[in-house]
Amino acid sequence: MKIIHGGVTAPKGFTAAGIYAGIKKKRKDMALVYSVVPAKGAGTFTKNMVKAAPVLWDIKLTKESENIQAIVINSGVANACTGEEGEKNNLAMAQAVASALQLPIDSVYTASTGVIGKQLPIDIIKDSIPQLAKELKDTTAAGTLAAEAIMTTDTYSKECAVKFTVGGKDITIGGMAKGSGMIHPDMATLIAVVTTDLAISKELLQEALSEDVKHTFNMISVDRDTSTNDSLLLLANGMAGNEEILEKNDDYYEFCKALNIVTSSLSKMIAADGEGATKLLEVTVEGANNWDDAVKLSKSIISSNLVKTAVFGNDANWGRILCAMGYSGVEFDPYKVDLIIESETGSLQLVENGMTTDYSEEFATSILSSEEIKATVNIKQGNAKATAWGCDFSYDYVKINAEYRS
Amino acid sequence: MKIIHGGVTAPKGFTAAGIYAGIKKKRKDMALVYSVVPAKGAGTFTKNMVKAAPVLWDIKLTKESENIQAIVINSGVANACTGEEGEKNNLAMAQAVASALQLPIDSVYTASTGVIGKQLPIDIIKDSIPQLAKELKDTTAAGTLAAEAIMTTDTYSKECAVKFTVGGKDITIGGMAKGSGMIHPDMATLIAVVTTDLAISKELLQEALSEDVKHTFNMISVDRDTSTNDSLLLLANGMAGNEEILEKNDDYYEFCKALNIVTSSLSKMIAADGEGATKLLEVTVEGANNWDDAVKLSKSIISSNLVKTAVFGNDANWGRILCAMGYSGVEFDPYKVDLIIESETGSLQLVENGMTTDYSEEFATSILSSEEIKATVNIKQGNAKATAWGCDFSYDYVKINAEYRS
Repeated sequence: MKIIHGGVTAPKGFTAAGIYAGIKKKRKDMALVYSVVPAKGAGTFTKNMVKAAPVLWDIKLTKESENIQAIVINSGVANACTGEEGEKNNLAMAQAVASALQLPIDSVYTASTGVIGKQLPIDIIKDSIPQLAKELKDTTAAGTLAAEAIMTTDTYSKECAVKFTVGGKDITIGGMAKGSGMIHPDMATLIAVVTTDLAISKELLQEALSEDVKHTFNMISVDRDTSTNDSLLLLANGMAGNEEILEKNDDYYEFCKALNIVTSSLSKMIAADGEGATKLLEVTVEGANNWDDAVKLSKSIISSNLVKTAVFGNDANWGRILCAMGYSGVEFDPYKVDLIIESETGSLQLVENGMTTDYSEEFATSILSSEEIKATVNIKQGNAKATAWGCDFSYDYVKINAEYRS
Repeated sequence: MKIIHGGVTAPKGFTAAGIYAGIKKKRKDMALVYSVVPAKGAGTFTKNMVKAAPVLWDIKLTKESENIQAIVINSGVANACTGEEGEKNNLAMAQAVASALQLPIDSVYTASTGVIGKQLPIDIIKDSIPQLAKELKDTTAAGTLAAEAIMTTDTYSKECAVKFTVGGKDITIGGMAKGSGMIHPDMATLIAVVTTDLAISKELLQEALSEDVKHTFNMISVDRDTSTNDSLLLLANGMAGNEEILEKNDDYYEFCKALNIVTSSLSKMIAADGEGATKLLEVTVEGANNWDDAVKLSKSIISSNLVKTAVFGNDANWGRILCAMGYSGVEFDPYKVDLIIESETGSLQLVENGMTTDYSEEFATSILSSEEIKATVNIKQGNAKATAWGCDFSYDYVKINAEYRS
C-alpha cells in the first residue's frame, strides 16, 4: 500500500473539472467529478436537523439509486434554509448535469457550500454546466481544479490518493475535501469526495465508509459548529478489474485500511487548515474503559476554545486540558491522568497523576511553537484509545467570521 | 420589591473586606464575607469531574454543616489539580479565618479562582487574613472591595441587591460574582456570593437556590468551558426578624422572585463582561414542546462561535442561528422557525418560517451595533420558553487567553 500523488482522478475511469462560473466574486466555484462507467455510491451526511437541499437529495439517492456517475458541487452558496425553491434549484442543477452527460438524473449527486439562507443563482449554474462537462479530464491537474473549486475560506486545496492490491489487481483510492469553518462533523465534513476503481458491493461500500468516518472526519473539529451541509460521498466504479468484493474478507479489510489513509489524511488537512489556524493539534486519549469515552475526552480537548487559544499562544496551560476532560461527561480519576506533549522539537511530560511535573516552561513553549503538535493523555483505567484532530484559535478566526458576508 | 444600590453587605448583619495580599502582581486578591451571627448556607457547584479543593470542601460543608458564618475567597490561583497539598492548603486558609474570627472551621466556606495546577501561596494567604478580618465593614464600599478582590480577567466588579417584604419585615438580598472566561456553568458560575437577612430553613434555602440557578447562572455561556471552580454560595442569617419560612408559602415564592432578580442580574453582568466581549446577547426560544428543549436551543445559539463572531461583526448572518439550533439535539421543523432581533435601535424580523424575510441588511446591522441585543426565536410547536445570555466573540478573547499566564 502506498500514498501516491493525486486526488479524485487517480483511480481508473474518473475525470474531473473545476471552473469559475460567477457565483463567487473571483475564485473558481463549480466542480464536477465523473466516472466513465456507472459506479456504486455511498455517503454519510450531517446530523444537523437543518439539512441543505443537496443533502436531502443525496440521502435519497444513497438509499434508492443503484448507480451514481457524477457529482456536481458549487461553492459560494450553501442552498440551506431555502425551502421549496432551494429543492427545485438543486434538482435543476442535477438535471443540467444529467443532460450534459446523458445520464439519468438519479445518478447525479449534488453538493453546495457557502452562505446559508440565500438561493442558488441557478441560471449562472445551469449556463456553466456544459462548459464544466466539456472540460472533464482524467489528469491530476483536473482533479486539483475540482478540489480548488469547492474551497470557501480554505487556504489550500485538499487531496490525497493511495494505491494497493486486491487479488493481483492494482486498486486506487483518491479523494478531495474542503473544510475551514463550521467544522465539527457529526457524520462527515462539509463536502469530501472519494473515488475508487475497486469492485465492491454497494452494501459493503457503505458499511466501510460509515465505519471509517467514525475514526476520521467525525474526529475533527474547528469550531464545534456542525454544518448544515456536511457530505462525504464515495464512488466505486469497479474499473480496476478485481473480483467484486461481496463479503468481509481480507480484501475488504485491505480496502478499509487504504480508505482510512485517504480519509484520515483529508481530515488532518481540514483540521490544520481550520479558519485562522496556525497549527494542527492531534490529541490521543489512552487508557479509557471504552472507545466512546476516549472519543468524548479527545474531542472535548480539541474543541475547547481555552485549549485552542493557549496552543495559539504557545502556552503549556495544561489545566485547561484537564478542565475540558472534566466536563466531557466521562468519569475518570483526575489524579491518575498523565499528559505528554510532543512535536519535532521533542517531547515532554507535563502532568503525572493529575499534577504538574515541574517541567521547564521554556522547553514546553518551544515544543508548542511547532506547526504540528501531539498531546497524549493516559487516564489509566482500561485499554481503549482514540485520536482527534483540531487546530489552534487565532485572531484570524474572529476576523474571518466577523466579516464573512461582507 | 425594589432593586437597591449595594452588594453582599446590603442585608442586615453582613460585613465584607477586600485587600491586596500579594498573590497577584498588582490587584486585590483576597476577599472575606462575614455574618455577625451564624447563618444558614446553601451552595451549588461545578459538575466538572475535576473539582478544585475549595469546591470539595464547600460541598462537604453544605451537606454537613448547620451554620456558616464566613466566606473567604482568593483570586490568582484556582487551587485545582493540586492533590493532597491543595486540600491541606485549603484547610489552612479556612483555619486562618476561623482563628481570626473565633469560629469553628466548619462554618467557613472557601473559594479560589485563577490558574489551574499551581499550589496556593499559602503563607502569603495566612499572613493576610488577620488584616482582612480587621477590615471587615458593613458599608456598601466594603462590599465593593470584596467584589473587586475576586476578579480575574473581569473588567468591572459585579454586584446587585434587592429589597422586599415578608410578614411586614424588610428583607434584603445582596450578591457579588466574578466571571469572564471558562464560563459555561453547569451548576453555577465561577464564584458568586449571595447574602440575605431572611429567616428560612436550610432545606428551603437550598431548594430555592438549586431551582433558581437553572434559570440564571446555568443559562449563560462565554466560551462553552465549564470551570473546575464554579461555586455559588448563599448565606441567610435571619436578622431581618421575619417569622422563619418553613414551607413553600407565599413568602417563600416572594423570596424566590427576589433571589431571581439578584442572580439573573449577576448572570447578565457576567455574560456581558465575558472575556473580550463588546456586547450582551440575550436569546429567548419560544414555542418549544418543553422547557428542556427551549434550554438546549437557546444555549446552543449563545454558545456558537460562529453566531458570536457574526454578532461581533454586526452581521445578521441568521443561517448560523438556524445551524446552531439544528445541532442542538432538539427535534423541530426548520420551516416553522421565526426569528426577530431587537435592540434600542428597533426590532426586525429576519426569518419567517425558516426563510429570509428579505429584510434591510443596513437596518439589521444598525440593530446589531448596540451593546445589548435580544433575539427571539419561535419554533411554533408548544408553549415552553427559555432565555439564555451570552456575548460576542472578539479578537480580545483570543488575546486574553493566548497570553493568560504570561
